[in-house]
Amino acid sequence: MSDPVLDHLLAQREGFVARLAELVAEPSVSTDPAYAEGMASARRWLIARLGALGFRDARELSAGSGHPAVTAHWHGAGPEAPTLLVYGHYDVQPPDPAEAWDSPPFVLTARNGRLHARGVSDDKGPMLLAVETLGAFLAVEGRLPVNVTLLLEGEEECGSASLPAIIEQNRAALGADAVLSADGARWRADLPTMTVATRGNTALEFSVRTAAKDLHSGRYGGVVRNALHEMAKLIASLHDAQGTILVPGFADGAEPAEASGLAAIPFDVAAHDASIGTSSGYSTAEFLERLWLRPTLDANGMWGGYTGAGGKTVIPAKAHAKLSMRLVPGQDPERCVEAVAAHLRAQCPPGVTLMLRPTRKGTRAYAVPDAHPLLLAAEQALEATTGTRPLRVRMGATLPLTDIVRSLLGIDTVMFSFATADEDFHAPNENWRDGAIAEGFAAWVALLRRVGESRRADFSPYRR
Amino acid sequence: MSDPVLDHLLAQREGFVARLAELVAEPSVSTDPAYAEGMASARRWLIARLGALGFRDARELSAGSGHPAVTAHWHGAGPEAPTLLVYGHYDVQPPDPAEAWDSPPFVLTARNGRLHARGVSDDKGPMLLAVETLGAFLAVEGRLPVNVTLLLEGEEECGSASLPAIIEQNRAALGADAVLSADGARWRADLPTMTVATRGNTALEFSVRTAAKDLHSGRYGGVVRNALHEMAKLIASLHDAQGTILVPGFADGAEPAEASGLAAIPFDVAAHDASIGTSSGYSTAEFLERLWLRPTLDANGMWGGYTGAGGKTVIPAKAHAKLSMRLVPGQDPERCVEAVAAHLRAQCPPGVTLMLRPTRKGTRAYAVPDAHPLLLAAEQALEATTGTRPLRVRMGATLPLTDIVRSLLGIDTVMFSFATADEDFHAPNENWRDGAIAEGFAAWVALLRRVGESRRADFSPYRR
Repeated sequence: MSDPVLDHLLAQREGFVARLAELVAEPSVSTDPAYAEGMASARRWLIARLGALGFRDARELSAGSGHPAVTAHWHGAGPEAPTLLVYGHYDVQPPDPAEAWDSPPFVLTARNGRLHARGVSDDKGPMLLAVETLGAFLAVEGRLPVNVTLLLEGEEECGSASLPAIIEQNRAALGADAVLSADGARWRADLPTMTVATRGNTALEFSVRTAAKDLHSGRYGGVVRNALHEMAKLIASLHDAQGTILVPGFADGAEPAEASGLAAIPFDVAAHDASIGTSSGYSTAEFLERLWLRPTLDANGMWGGYTGAGGKTVIPAKAHAKLSMRLVPGQDPERCVEAVAAHLRAQCPPGVTLMLRPTRKGTRAYAVPDAHPLLLAAEQALEATTGTRPLRVRMGATLPLTDIVRSLLGIDTVMFSFATADEDFHAPNENWRDGAIAEGFAAWVALLRRVGESRRADFSPYRR
Repeated sequence: MSDPVLDHLLAQREGFVARLAELVAEPSVSTDPAYAEGMASARRWLIARLGALGFRDARELSAGSGHPAVTAHWHGAGPEAPTLLVYGHYDVQPPDPAEAWDSPPFVLTARNGRLHARGVSDDKGPMLLAVETLGAFLAVEGRLPVNVTLLLEGEEECGSASLPAIIEQNRAALGADAVLSADGARWRADLPTMTVATRGNTALEFSVRTAAKDLHSGRYGGVVRNALHEMAKLIASLHDAQGTILVPGFADGAEPAEASGLAAIPFDVAAHDASIGTSSGYSTAEFLERLWLRPTLDANGMWGGYTGAGGKTVIPAKAHAKLSMRLVPGQDPERCVEAVAAHLRAQCPPGVTLMLRPTRKGTRAYAVPDAHPLLLAAEQALEATTGTRPLRVRMGATLPLTDIVRSLLGIDTVMFSFATADEDFHAPNENWRDGAIAEGFAAWVALLRRVGESRRADFSPYRR
């Protein structure tokens, strides 16, 4: 059954790829000030495109000295229709190591059934799917099925530091019934899935000091503490031999999660392990429970003493570590950092100075309510376009947006992305499946039509 | 009672400091290939100076691809006179961390009664004391009281790897009745001491690998091992909470040492601790027993994962450590490395790959025979110049030379250094007391005159 908006989109597929090529050519790397002009020109490109498509009031939203977001809206569906805040991000990861790319990172290059470029999968391709689908409704039908506000962030790859302030300072303009996110990659390409939960995260850095200065291992060995030994004992004290976290209070508040359906999920642990050179030995249920339903506490970096070539017989006086955590529903990021800090203080023997530095405001874990109308609409849209009812899955990673909009706007987020987790985002040769374009067009059209059948009041039970 | 050689040296004191400034300006870091030219220019400087002072046959001695030693001799004292092999080393430790220095590491800088530069105390200053005192005898008297061969090593700071081959290939040229070492710092400045024993040492580097590549902590956290956690567990497994080494077999063969005299040695543990910002709580006897009579096993460096600014949510796949040990009499360095390697293998769980790299041939612990004529002469020289009979002490550090010359030349080594253990060698702001120059000149003159009164035959009982 043909849909005029989808027909329009599919007929314009080459134009879509040409526009995506323009957008990925803007090197919008948010973490590195050297790319400030690439960030600015990506914003100009988006504002011009949103205006050309018929969105209203396309402009930057900024807070402080952070990278601005881009916003625009079309609110002509009437006060009874729901309003969706459609989210994406135009910033990308650095291209380093540039020499590892098989084609230039900021030139869209098609090969082997995939488009390659930095940001093509995370998140410029999926974001442009949303933007162009919405524009096609305006072009073909002169209206959208729902009210839409777009929020295209510029700091997703560097911690979303300005996003809370941007939302807080623009509550009225950004007010909506739910967030529909074009970011948040699908688990896999071979199975339609809806990601309905994410883990939270937070982080902590610390150092230990055992003496005023590094000391010669001959002159002092045996009568002073070694900062590396103390650091090793502290890191080793965080987990038992099975990897279970031993920090008292860390799991306080964690809600029991339902793991009973995990064994039925088709997932080949051995193949996954082989792809990263490990052999975990977990069953599918164990693997998915550990990845989705349990918190983690990982050292991301640890260093001290002499690390150059050859040897140096030094007793290091200082050692350093960076820790980060993934959290499950019910865990409070600040309390988790406090629990780890208290554990480290308790483990630290006399004569060892502990210096703690919390490094970021954390993000709580998130789960979409089971019967949220946008989730149900998304599932129906995927089933209608793929022929398969999507499997509800969780993910181990974190989308700070979910926590921010729930706190500040009191609304939920549904991830509706057509990127896939194996597309090497954050790595060289980032790529995006050619097939995601037609698949995404069809699903976005179906979803918008489906949400257009609902009313604003359907979302009321889920607004806080 | 004036000595013409000593008068000559004291009158030339400023020239001595100027020459020391030239020598420390050569960045002769032996552990890092980036400093190869500094090593070569330090050798050229020494060879030129030895020739100018009247030594014969000043030249390089090399073996394989290691850093050459510098040698020269004066053998005009006759066949009945003893021959001393006078040892020093021209290589220095790396200057890292360069930013911690209060003056540039390779610029001799006087402040607060001390000269500062990398290598000024270990061992360029003390080595130059020996060289210039011998030169002053040649200048003033046209001869030395004994036959002397100089051996100035270039690999003391990186394990003396070539020294055995250099000595083995030049047995005839380097043959002597005893070694007189200008290296091996004095214990302290306030008490004349003779160091009569040293600990041995050896080293080992290793890495652990837990996956084929670093992994995203959200997408993999909970289902893969973290290399930093594994490294921390391995390092933590080496000692108990009191710092006792837990490696099976490590202490095999260690000879019981006589600790009964330690409590009588005047030593203020609290003041020593305060000088390095620690508070060990040991009694003098405990402190000295741990430092002199017990082995150690120290991590000198440990690193892995992200160590830059900010955070990175990575699960590191690799971690690295450098270990070194100090050994007591009876411990065999190779067996100790094997014991540590076996312990690490035994502690390493399945799924973690351990990669071991022994880094140097070790050195056994050493003790000078109680009645060795060079030891007695050195004690008499110190008593004559300081007015106090020196106390016999041990040291926790290692002089690889002692083990090598006892094995290859069958002779003993007496340490006669005018560096002091608190002079931050191997650390930023290495320094050397101004007073060591005049004190060292006087003691070296007295010692050479005293040994000049002995005969080669006096050394025979101690040659093997």
